[in-house]
Amino acid sequence: MPARRVGRTWVLCSGGSGRRGQSEPVVGCGIMGVDSPESAAAQKAATPVRRCVMAQDDCLFCKIVKGEVPAEIVREGERTLAFRDINPQAPTHVLVIPREHVRDAASAAAADAGLVDEIVREARAVAESEGVAETGYRLVFNTGSGAGQTVFHLHAHLLGGRGLNWPPG
Amino acid sequence: MPARRVGRTWVLCSGGSGRRGQSEPVVGCGIMGVDSPESAAAQKAATPVRRCVMAQDDCLFCKIVKGEVPAEIVREGERTLAFRDINPQAPTHVLVIPREHVRDAASAAAADAGLVDEIVREARAVAESEGVAETGYRLVFNTGSGAGQTVFHLHAHLLGGRGLNWPPG
Repeated sequence: MPARRVGRTWVLCSGGSGRRGQSEPVVGCGIMGVDSPESAAAQKAATPVRRCVMAQDDCLFCKIVKGEVPAEIVREGERTLAFRDINPQAPTHVLVIPREHVRDAASAAAADAGLVDEIVREARAVAESEGVAETGYRLVFNTGSGAGQTVFHLHAHLLGGRGLNWPPG
Repeated sequence: MPARRVGRTWVLCSGGSGRRGQSEPVVGCGIMGVDSPESAAAQKAATPVRRCVMAQDDCLFCKIVKGEVPAEIVREGERTLAFRDINPQAPTHVLVIPREHVRDAASAAAADAGLVDEIVREARAVAESEGVAETGYRLVFNTGSGAGQTVFHLHAHLLGGRGLNWPPG
């Protein structure tokens, strides 16, 4: 399924609960704003309700999967969705998530369904379409609030397009 | 298979080739030293040659898998090995690698053999044994030298035991 962009929108707000320093800025607190009413209307018209397996009503990412909350989608897979982080930390900063509600990478891996592999494959495809596959990119999975996870729906952060420092946070 | 520790050894040296800032400090440049001759001898006696599928002669991590280069092993799986990073960036900083030589996460995922899922499962087991599963941990996959990958044998960095900052590098 080809990548699809649906305009620059603001779907998430910043915040944090990390134990030290700044935590992952994506939190499940709803819509901050949309860049323009026109883009919101256009997006609503263009965005069908997406398939979401076992959605949780209070999960922001499930709402994005279902099309109830806008996001700048960059790729749609059978089991995954990729969209831009609202608070990008690199020229390319995309979140790759499963459509199915899964709490974190460990939970997905425990199910032994190849879902993490699929997320990594999709991330590679996004990296290629973003032009960072050859220059290099980093995938980050946060597990638990102590690591900065604030939306408890599995998501891989894909960062690229600039040099990436060490340590990774 | 239970976790196994084989003493505090130094198997890798620091360096970097990242485009900005400090890159991932694990590089494939051989042994820096061993903390004491006694521990090296004890380790040699205790460490059998490990199974390594499709090893590459010049790959540091393949040598660790085969037992030719010492490492502080924390867990051995059927298809994976976990050992401490020589230049830890957190109280828990463990590398989880496949025994098989695979260049990076994308290559493993492309093979569709569930290997990334298995690495994530093993990482979870390490996080539990290290006591960071509940407090939170971060998994980082670097792909390409631009992202700081310096050993081209797939490895997940597992970091935990402290608050983790944002951005992740």
